[in-house]
Amino acid sequence: MAAKTQTTALFLCLLICISAVYGHKTRSRRPCKELVFFFHDILYLGYNRNNATAVIVASPQWGNKTAMAKPFNFGDLVVFDDPITLDNNLHSPPVGRAQGTYFYDQWSIYGAWLGFSFLFNSTDYVGTLNFAGADPLINKTRDISVIGGTGDFFMARGVATVSTDAFEGDVYFRLRVDIRLYECW
Amino acid sequence: MAAKTQTTALFLCLLICISAVYGHKTRSRRPCKELVFFFHDILYLGYNRNNATAVIVASPQWGNKTAMAKPFNFGDLVVFDDPITLDNNLHSPPVGRAQGTYFYDQWSIYGAWLGFSFLFNSTDYVGTLNFAGADPLINKTRDISVIGGTGDFFMARGVATVSTDAFEGDVYFRLRVDIRLYECW
Amino acid sequence: MAAKTQTTALFLCLLICISAVYGHKTRSRRPCKELVFFFHDILYLGYNRNNATAVIVASPQWGNKTAMAKPFNFGDLVVFDDPITLDNNLHSPPVGRAQGTYFYDQWSIYGAWLGFSFLFNSTDYVGTLNFAGADPLINKTRDISVIGGTGDFFMARGVATVSTDAFEGDVYFRLRVDIRLYECW
Repeated sequence: MAAKTQTTALFLCLLICISAVYGHKTRSRRPCKELVFFFHDILYLGYNRNNATAVIVASPQWGNKTAMAKPFNFGDLVVFDDPITLDNNLHSPPVGRAQGTYFYDQWSIYGAWLGFSFLFNSTDYVGTLNFAGADPLINKTRDISVIGGTGDFFMARGVATVSTDAFEGDVYFRLRVDIRLYECW
Repeated sequence: MAAKTQTTALFLCLLICISAVYGHKTRSRRPCKELVFFFHDILYLGYNRNNATAVIVASPQWGNKTAMAKPFNFGDLVVFDDPITLDNNLHSPPVGRAQGTYFYDQWSIYGAWLGFSFLFNSTDYVGTLNFAGADPLINKTRDISVIGGTGDFFMARGVATVSTDAFEGDVYFRLRVDIRLYECW
Repeated sequence: MAAKTQTTALFLCLLICISAVYGHKTRSRRPCKELVFFFHDILYLGYNRNNATAVIVASPQWGNKTAMAKPFNFGDLVVFDDPITLDNNLHSPPVGRAQGTYFYDQWSIYGAWLGFSFLFNSTDYVGTLNFAGADPLINKTRDISVIGGTGDFFMARGVATVSTDAFEGDVYFRLRVDIRLYECW
């Protein structure tokens, strides 16, 4: 009887083993870490160099570097160094910096592509998270990829859900970023 | 006898377990998903704004935004929003958009770097795939990385083999993309 | 007695199995591959087109394409095609090319963001490694992500530690890159 139970358990175990090694669908969709941040982007428009955090560095033939191109900012490429906060207040103490680029890549609607990092160097976190993905602004929420991490986020992978929390014309926007990591090391 | 068999099976099982947990070479090189798409890039060259899907937004000192720089387009950075089709016909109904950037980064031969996403929102697929990698155009096929995905392609990783299916001067090219995912969740 | 031992082993095995399948912390922090390279960047500054390997293609409103913008190069985006060597000698035979972009994204200190590939086509390695991440130059070493690979580096992931090995004004810098892969296929 005991032998029979053992044999059954053994087969079960082998099955799990084999599915773990060869299977493609054994990964967990439960996040191993969840984080929420806001970051704040103040675009340089020719007059606000003192408090701007982002600057247009490339634009299409019909654009320039102190105003968004029409229509839909298409072709404007922005480099940014934005403060990250824990809440939606621009004046909260920053817990890190969001640094990288976004560029508008749609002719007929607002849409952008993001390549950037979160840099943390605080008591809570030391390290970076790297992001890439499309940001079709027409959607209330947009999913981009967490493509890697370092330090406290060593080798992280996951999905970040981005939503526009507020904006003021072309000069300011605030993004809420809900980070869900599914690979933690 | 039964006990001996069980013991053998047990050791085998433990071995598989340990190799699965600690080993680096247990991953499968068999794709968990294979996809083939084409995308079509029509570059804005000053006269064709109506049907262009891509635009030069940055160029070297000797370049401009309505013609490719000589030699080898070196330094031209293009932002694109290209239709994706299932076959090589530009006029087939698009199944998604390829959005992102490519820039030419070789002085002495044609070569580019790609950072872009495929965006799907159809009956077949909803979600995105994110790509990055070098595109040395001299090679018939070039491998780039699938660095992440969202939606139906949640957490995907893989390799995409890119080949130039057709081109017409500087104004048009069509890329065939053979996507092989090796991580599917 | 033998049965009891077997039962214990079985439970242990099941435990390992379950942790392997469902756990998030079973991955090894021991690199599966370690590599060290140097790459050399000679920036085009208007006079040195013959030996330059990198070129400014985008800059902020106050910048231009033959000199770094003040302050801190903020907003300058560079496209590069740099030789990779095994030691710190610019004139050593290159073992590959580093191709991609860096752009300076800090107003108040030197800092950049990197998106590039290493391309190998030698007797030692054939394939590519793709990188992305922040490069806060104030730090002696900076960690970026290896976000993918192809060929001999098929599906690689890891962390690359970047340090400035030497520089000469704006015209030349040499980066040492310590690559540690934690996912090898």
